[in-house]
Amino acid sequence: MSDISFAEALATWAADSPAPNSKIAEQRAIDAFTDVIACMLAGSQNEVTLKVLDATIRTHGKGEQTVFGHEVKLPMAGAALVNGMSAHALDFDDNFMPGLTHATAVLAPALIAVGEANNCSGGQLIDAYVIGLELQARISSLVNPEHYQSGWHATSTVGTIGAAGAVAALLRLPAAQICAAMSIAFSLAAGSKLQFGSQTKPLHAGLAAHNAVLAAQLAVTGVGAQPDFLTGRWSFQDLYAPNLARPPEVAVENLGTQWAIEEFGLLAKRFPCCAASHKALDALEILRNEHGATLANLKHVVAKLPAPLYQNLRFDNPVTENEARFSFSYPATTVIREGLVSLRHFKPDAVSDPEIRAALPIFTRECIETDEKGVHADVIVTAEFQSGKSVEIKITDVRGGPNLPLSHSDMERKIADCLSWSGTEDQKPIFEKLPSLREIEDINTL
Amino acid sequence: MSDISFAEALATWAADSPAPNSKIAEQRAIDAFTDVIACMLAGSQNEVTLKVLDATIRTHGKGEQTVFGHEVKLPMAGAALVNGMSAHALDFDDNFMPGLTHATAVLAPALIAVGEANNCSGGQLIDAYVIGLELQARISSLVNPEHYQSGWHATSTVGTIGAAGAVAALLRLPAAQICAAMSIAFSLAAGSKLQFGSQTKPLHAGLAAHNAVLAAQLAVTGVGAQPDFLTGRWSFQDLYAPNLARPPEVAVENLGTQWAIEEFGLLAKRFPCCAASHKALDALEILRNEHGATLANLKHVVAKLPAPLYQNLRFDNPVTENEARFSFSYPATTVIREGLVSLRHFKPDAVSDPEIRAALPIFTRECIETDEKGVHADVIVTAEFQSGKSVEIKITDVRGGPNLPLSHSDMERKIADCLSWSGTEDQKPIFEKLPSLREIEDINTL
Repeated sequence: MSDISFAEALATWAADSPAPNSKIAEQRAIDAFTDVIACMLAGSQNEVTLKVLDATIRTHGKGEQTVFGHEVKLPMAGAALVNGMSAHALDFDDNFMPGLTHATAVLAPALIAVGEANNCSGGQLIDAYVIGLELQARISSLVNPEHYQSGWHATSTVGTIGAAGAVAALLRLPAAQICAAMSIAFSLAAGSKLQFGSQTKPLHAGLAAHNAVLAAQLAVTGVGAQPDFLTGRWSFQDLYAPNLARPPEVAVENLGTQWAIEEFGLLAKRFPCCAASHKALDALEILRNEHGATLANLKHVVAKLPAPLYQNLRFDNPVTENEARFSFSYPATTVIREGLVSLRHFKPDAVSDPEIRAALPIFTRECIETDEKGVHADVIVTAEFQSGKSVEIKITDVRGGPNLPLSHSDMERKIADCLSWSGTEDQKPIFEKLPSLREIEDINTL
Repeated sequence: MSDISFAEALATWAADSPAPNSKIAEQRAIDAFTDVIACMLAGSQNEVTLKVLDATIRTHGKGEQTVFGHEVKLPMAGAALVNGMSAHALDFDDNFMPGLTHATAVLAPALIAVGEANNCSGGQLIDAYVIGLELQARISSLVNPEHYQSGWHATSTVGTIGAAGAVAALLRLPAAQICAAMSIAFSLAAGSKLQFGSQTKPLHAGLAAHNAVLAAQLAVTGVGAQPDFLTGRWSFQDLYAPNLARPPEVAVENLGTQWAIEEFGLLAKRFPCCAASHKALDALEILRNEHGATLANLKHVVAKLPAPLYQNLRFDNPVTENEARFSFSYPATTVIREGLVSLRHFKPDAVSDPEIRAALPIFTRECIETDEKGVHADVIVTAEFQSGKSVEIKITDVRGGPNLPLSHSDMERKIADCLSWSGTEDQKPIFEKLPSLREIEDINTL
């Protein structure tokens, strides 16, 4: 480690890396592609996706790469942009806690666009995806949680850099060029959590995928960039988490023997809204199903949330569907009334439903002090019924997370919901091929 | 100001703004386009530009917009990327001190690409350019000098946001969409000064122009973004200059009556290297011409530089031509030996010239404490001759800056050098039309 930078060490590992070669890593990668393709199809007809598609045709023209849910094909970077937009449009795609990123919504669109253009196999896609996750986790370890908590949207900062490395690895570039791809991506790593609640928040995943593709292709042609960009003066760590005294060695500890996809996995969502609400919503489901809670018999419900979750859910009285996705009170009302939060709940008429709006004040949130677990801390929901009865529910593991993964039928229901929502039922056959993704020789045949 | 954010106030001004309607603003805008087009042509055949062109064809495909110095045409965002890359490839393009940006290398490629696609007139281009400069100055006032000094490359942070606003103004978007364009551009505003000395530094101008075009076109289609993104929690000011207690009102003070292009103007370069060296190089020219300095009769020369200039010139013993551009000692040797620094001095064989390398240790730099003038502070050069004679030269105004603008013949010589360097002499006719840019009805006829 003495003569090369931490970024070069990561790039060298990515260039030479063997796959983790475990059933659990393989299955989680395939599940992640399955989940994100369902989300891309679901989001493909969303208002903001159609706008972004229109803008991308203006700025990038048409090309040869697939745009999920659309006939039109776009050039490589444009396809990554629109597919990333689709993937995150409904906030239904997965979370990757070691990165504090929506990892797959950035990685998959970038890898698919470049993989198609280069006739890559399904196995190459899986391997590059696992490398990309690991890079996101390692880069995140240098800056988080300060980075995320100070306002940066890690999906489009950490996510862009990690995905650029993954694309470069997919292209079998040598280590120096994988490092250059990530260093160039550092010059495209932006995005604030201030955009949560606006259409630009989901756009971040598309921009990150786009920028990862662009950075990697610039590295392909040999554009040079500083190889020591992760740590030290003016580096990613210095500019994006200046107050975090994190020893840079964490970026390479146990590299190659310990894999984030095995240790942490991903969190597939049951509900199409900010993951910060999901543990609390799991508690509300219990409150409804096991304690008979209804909007009528509840007096007051408080979700006690660790700071990062509390801050993300800043819209207590959401007006638009995008604000509703970053609310606790809004999805809480629908879980109590209907037992779930569904895609249909993020339409203007659903958000303005008088019964729901009247019930919003029942549900409030409190910020609790947490130990070093941060976003991983337990969430506690306390409910007071009109009858005077009170209930407290503590949630440690979120449903959809690695300890409570979505069941096969959960995922089938999610896929069906996504296809039905967007009118893309004709895309169903792709989901029959995905379990054998490793065996697909050219992903253009997907 | 009470009900709208500072970003909305800037956007409202940009939507309604009358041109400053002054001869000096008009002339400076035309000079800036002239200078940058010469630089784009000069940089068009540079190694890194050819790489970026190749990568852009892969990621964006071909299209309809002009790429200076090349036959191939690219889609709007791709043309902005490659032209921005060309403009800054040789570090010969202008500086805009109120922004701490290479303003024109970002604004002109973005405005030309979008202006061509929309058949804009030369007058529209000039007016949008002046608005873009003002936006860069205003946005910069919220974060600089802390932002720049902490390591951010303002050209690709402030530059991207200001250029997105300028493109949106060129397209005559309403204020809300101009604001959205800038807010989306905030999600693309990145780039560290760590890249100085690598090929990614000049690439920043191309990426900024590309991202400004993309952000503005996303706003055209109605993509929403938070309108209060410049100040407050998680804002541009908060994330990019967290320790600067700058009152946000500076962003709108005297807006519409005081124009940065009139008050400060631009700094056109005489030498194709980092502007941080230029005052010192002016002093060396005096040392050579008025005091008879040669590499043989000089014992020791010290350039006393304010901190930001000192830090930018970090390569005392440059190995590559990109490092040589961010050096004081290297261009100092060529000014003393040949009376100038020219494009030909940034080739590998020039950087490895034995006489030059032997003379590098003569020239050292010192960091001096400065008052609030920062980058504008005087530069002092002290020289000790072998004879024992010593000379001190203080430079307040740099040649090429607003107080000592390039003469007509200076500019003619620069254009001829640029065209000759890149073998693009056939492009000379454009420079005969540029003085009448205001009268050109469709810039496609340029």
